[in-house]
Amino acid sequence: MTVRIACKYGSHRVLKPKGVLPQPALQIDNDFSTVYDNEILVDVIALNIDSASFTQLEEAAGGDIKKIEAKILEIVEQRGKMQNPITGSGGMFIGKVAKIGAALKDRDLKVGDKIASLVSLSLTPLKIKKIKKIHQDIDRVEIEGQAILFESGIYAKLPEDMTESLALAALDVAGAPAQAAKLVRPGDRVLIIGAGGKSGLLCCYEAMKRVGPTGRVVGNVHHAKDIPILMGLNLCHEAVTGDATKPVEFLDIVKNANGGKEFDLVINCVNVSNCEMGSILPCRDGGLVYFFSMATNFTKAALGAEGVGKDVTMIVGNGYTKDHAEITLWELRENEKLRKLFEERYM
Amino acid sequence: MTVRIACKYGSHRVLKPKGVLPQPALQIDNDFSTVYDNEILVDVIALNIDSASFTQLEEAAGGDIKKIEAKILEIVEQRGKMQNPITGSGGMFIGKVAKIGAALKDRDLKVGDKIASLVSLSLTPLKIKKIKKIHQDIDRVEIEGQAILFESGIYAKLPEDMTESLALAALDVAGAPAQAAKLVRPGDRVLIIGAGGKSGLLCCYEAMKRVGPTGRVVGNVHHAKDIPILMGLNLCHEAVTGDATKPVEFLDIVKNANGGKEFDLVINCVNVSNCEMGSILPCRDGGLVYFFSMATNFTKAALGAEGVGKDVTMIVGNGYTKDHAEITLWELRENEKLRKLFEERYM
Repeated sequence: MTVRIACKYGSHRVLKPKGVLPQPALQIDNDFSTVYDNEILVDVIALNIDSASFTQLEEAAGGDIKKIEAKILEIVEQRGKMQNPITGSGGMFIGKVAKIGAALKDRDLKVGDKIASLVSLSLTPLKIKKIKKIHQDIDRVEIEGQAILFESGIYAKLPEDMTESLALAALDVAGAPAQAAKLVRPGDRVLIIGAGGKSGLLCCYEAMKRVGPTGRVVGNVHHAKDIPILMGLNLCHEAVTGDATKPVEFLDIVKNANGGKEFDLVINCVNVSNCEMGSILPCRDGGLVYFFSMATNFTKAALGAEGVGKDVTMIVGNGYTKDHAEITLWELRENEKLRKLFEERYM
Repeated sequence: MTVRIACKYGSHRVLKPKGVLPQPALQIDNDFSTVYDNEILVDVIALNIDSASFTQLEEAAGGDIKKIEAKILEIVEQRGKMQNPITGSGGMFIGKVAKIGAALKDRDLKVGDKIASLVSLSLTPLKIKKIKKIHQDIDRVEIEGQAILFESGIYAKLPEDMTESLALAALDVAGAPAQAAKLVRPGDRVLIIGAGGKSGLLCCYEAMKRVGPTGRVVGNVHHAKDIPILMGLNLCHEAVTGDATKPVEFLDIVKNANGGKEFDLVINCVNVSNCEMGSILPCRDGGLVYFFSMATNFTKAALGAEGVGKDVTMIVGNGYTKDHAEITLWELRENEKLRKLFEERYM
C-alpha cells in the first residue's frame, strides 16, 4: 500500500479557485471514495450551524423548515462544505470516527469515538446523505452524512461525564481560558474585561487559580447583578462595573479596584467595539494585553498604543492553543459551582 | 508654586465630547497661557502632514495653495489640532522645546532642543500664528506656532550627525526594527515578509545582527530587483520573491529557502491585505508572528490560525516600544551601506 500524504491544511481538496486554503475556497472536494493517509473520516450525527448563518437561512426561507432544508442541501452540493454564501460562516459538527488515516494512527483516537469538530464547517469537506431533523431553537441539524478532518483540523473527544450541550458550551470558547492558563503567573495583577460572559468566567477561574497569594484578579462586568455571582464563586478578588468604551473613566474605576496600580495582564473578553483603549490604558508598561474579542480593530489597537506611548505587548486571541479543549473541560470538572452556573445559563 | 499635574494622556485638554481621549476628540484646548507641570511646550518649525490627509486637502482645494492654507488654519482653529476631518489622520511636527513642565525636569531634554514628535498630530494641541510656506512636494508646512506634548507623548531629539530628512525617514517606522531587535534570539529562524521596504530593510538588519551563527534570516521581496540589494548589503541569508496572499504556494517558497523548515519568528512588514495566512502558515507551532502591517485584519488572523490549528502567538505591531527612536537611528550609524541606501531611496 502506498502512503498518500496530502496537504495538512487541506489545500489538496480545493477545487476552485486554485491556490487558496479550504476556508476562502468556493468549492472543495467532498468525494470520500478516496481518504488520504493524513485525513480522518467521520460519520456525522449533527451540524451545529453558526448562529449568524442559521438566522440568515431562516429569514431567507421565511421560517419554512422545508425551504431551510433544501437550501442547506443545495449549499453543500455546490460547495462541498456547509459555508453560508451570504454570511461566510460555518459552525461545527458532532460525529463518530469512521476511519483514521494510517499516518495519524498514533493519535489518542479510535474508530467509534464521538468527537466535536473544533474547526469551522466553512472549511470542512462534508457530504449529506439525508437531513433527519432540524431543531430551529438550537440551530442544530441532525443528518446522515460524512465529513473529513484534515491533519491540521482540531477536534475534541466528547467527555462521558457531562452532557453534550454542556461540553459544547464550554468548547465554544476554549481558546480564551486555555490562553489565560498559559499566561497568568504568580504575583500577576490581572484585569478581565467582560468577566460576566462565558469566556470571561472561565478566564477568571484560571487566573484565580494561578495568581497565588500576592496576585490580584479584577473582573469587569457590564451588569451589576453579576458582581455577587463572581464574588460568590470566588472568581475574582474584586468585581466592578464600568464601560471600557470610555477609557479615561474606565481606567480610574479599574485602578481603584487594584489599589491604584496598573495591571500586568489585561484580558479582553467583551465582544463590543471601541474597547481597544480601555484595554490598553490599564496595562503597565511592559505588560500584556490579550484581545480575545472578535470586535477588536487591529489599527485602533496599534495606533492607539503608540498615541499614548504605551510599551505593551498586544496579542491577537488565537482560538486554538495546544490542549485548549482539555483545559477548558477540566475547569468544569474541578469547579462544581462553575459547572452548575454553566448548566443554568448555557444549556 | 503649586504643582499642577494633569492627565498624562491629555484628557484634561479634551473639550468635546467629554470622557474621550484627545485622538477621537472633536475639539481640544489649545490655550497655552496655562502649561501644566507634566506638559512640554514646543515652538513648532514645521508640520509633516500625513500623506492621506495632504492629498485630500490638495484635491479639495483643486491644488490652490491659498485654499490649502486657509483650510489648515480653519481646521486648527476649530479643532485645536491638525486632524483632517475627512481622513481622521494627522502627521507629526518638528520644533524647538520652549518650556518643560517642572514634573518632567529629570528627562534628558532641555529648552532649545530640536525634536520631532512621534505621536500623531491628530491628538496634539496646536496653535498656528502664521503659515510661512507650504512645500507641496513633501507634504510639509512651515509655520510659526506652538504645540503641547503630554506626559505620555513620545518624541525624538533630532540627531546632529544626519540630515533631518534621513532621520525622519527612519523614525517614521521606528517601531518595527526596535521590536525586531527585542524579539530575535540567537539560533532563531526568521522570515521577514516585505523585506525590500523601509521597515523590512531595518528589521532584516536587526535580525541578521542577532540570530548568530546558527540562525537564519529569509527575506521575502515583491520585486526580484531587490534580491541582489538585500544580499549585497548582507541583510539576509537568502532572499526570495513570493506572494504572501497565496499562502500555500508561498509556504513552499519560503520553506525551501529555509532548508524545508518552518520559522520561529515571522515579521510581516508589507502593507497589503490578505497576508494573514501567508504569515501564519510558515510559523512553527509555539512560534511568533509579528504583524507590523496596518493592512492586517484582526478577525482573519484570529480565525485563520484556529482554522489551521496553529498554536502561534500573534502580536499586534505597536508603533511604540521603549528606545525605539534610538535603536532605529543607531542602525543607520552602524551600517554605512544601509544609510547610503536610505539616502538614495528616501530623501
